Amino acid sequence: MKKPEVPKHTVEVCFSPQLYHLFEKRDAIVVVVDIFRATSAICTAFEHGAKSIIPVSTLEEALEYKRQGYLAGGERNGIVQEGFEFGNSPFSYMGEHIKGREIALTTTNGTKAIHIARNAPELVVGSFINLDALAKWLINKEKDVVILCAGWKDRFNMEDSLFSGALTNLLLASNKFKSDCDSANASSLVYRTARRDLLKFLRTCSHRKRLAHLNLEKDVEYCLTPNQSTYIPVLKEEKLVGENWKK
Amino acid sequence: MKKPEVPKHTVEVCFSPQLYHLFEKRDAIVVVVDIFRATSAICTAFEHGAKSIIPVSTLEEALEYKRQGYLAGGERNGIVQEGFEFGNSPFSYMGEHIKGREIALTTTNGTKAIHIARNAPELVVGSFINLDALAKWLINKEKDVVILCAGWKDRFNMEDSLFSGALTNLLLASNKFKSDCDSANASSLVYRTARRDLLKFLRTCSHRKRLAHLNLEKDVEYCLTPNQSTYIPVLKEEKLVGENWKK
Repeated sequence: MKKPEVPKHTVEVCFSPQLYHLFEKRDAIVVVVDIFRATSAICTAFEHGAKSIIPVSTLEEALEYKRQGYLAGGERNGIVQEGFEFGNSPFSYMGEHIKGREIALTTTNGTKAIHIARNAPELVVGSFINLDALAKWLINKEKDVVILCAGWKDRFNMEDSLFSGALTNLLLASNKFKSDCDSANASSLVYRTARRDLLKFLRTCSHRKRLAHLNLEKDVEYCLTPNQSTYIPVLKEEKLVGENWKK
Repeated sequence: MKKPEVPKHTVEVCFSPQLYHLFEKRDAIVVVVDIFRATSAICTAFEHGAKSIIPVSTLEEALEYKRQGYLAGGERNGIVQEGFEFGNSPFSYMGEHIKGREIALTTTNGTKAIHIARNAPELVVGSFINLDALAKWLINKEKDVVILCAGWKDRFNMEDSLFSGALTNLLLASNKFKSDCDSANASSLVYRTARRDLLKFLRTCSHRKRLAHLNLEKDVEYCLTPNQSTYIPVLKEEKLVGENWKK
């Protein structure tokens, strides 16, 4: 009888960009998550044919790219900023105008988290939009995984933790990963409680004012719908490019 | 008919001392939590008649107090340090030798968290040992509450989060508190899942190596047993003193 495979790689969840330094590892893949809405928008853009996305820290940098002919998205606190055609709504990253384009993007939480982890050996972007494809891509890589939640202004937030739990569960189910990380285990537990109806769960269990403030029912529902894309946005020399898991 | 009372005060949970600055509020009571084992030991000491506990940052400071005739506890990574009679095992803080004494204490996570929040308008110490009394004391105070988890080397840990969930639930049940905080809501959910058997839950859901490393079955069980004391350790001029809720 063949011995069962012993899980070799770890999955860890970091709840805040401010704690990321505690999770830095020489040989891990970092998955950056900002469910509402930056990483959901980024995954959407690649599904709709974007050539690359350049995550930048400031509105000024993004506008400079725009002057050079790039598309540019600029969002702060859920609102499209002056001088930009769009912010971080995934619905802005669909359609013909996206195809083949390079897009500069700056957002309140998501691009900041990408910036903090940009020196990781490998950095990818995750969301419910590419959940299954991302899990398969990570399992295939056979490396340790750190899921970095962008959070809400450096605080823990429920939606990024839910996604972390969903991804953790898929990785653990492969039997190639183990978790020694309490935050991964807590996320996994919260996701199992919520999975039947993520939207309903978030309505009752998450910071209602913050979600209501977003006032984006359609976006929220879209961002919680798994597996709408098989693209994995991978950071290559300061640009995210899409790797298609199905290719 | 009398209108139902509208909850006025907030309860928030901070998962790491490194995030505490995001939670600092001018008029909140901070509850410092380090279930394994510093805050459980502190609550135990007051139940056994300690006069005060002086939380200090370094082993050297604690030893200096010892030279001056104080009792002194010194722990790092679960181990009693050289020159100290005891570390942070609650069982060291029981009995006649504790009665009426002033005790200097330094631990890996717990006293560090107290130090970080020492300028809060009011700082108290919580553990399962004084759970119900602490909840009543806080409800009676009618102020916002921030629960500060000492965590494990600045990371989220399961046991401090479980306690945060237990305390959050008691505060919310009083109808004098509301929660707009995702980490409070997540803690509350994890506690509700685990409450039937906290020990079993931690054995399956927490970082096993870390708990096994502690090798302290008896301590762990004691620290998870609620309501063994009615004392609230309150910080007054750099010393913790015990306020008896029943008095």
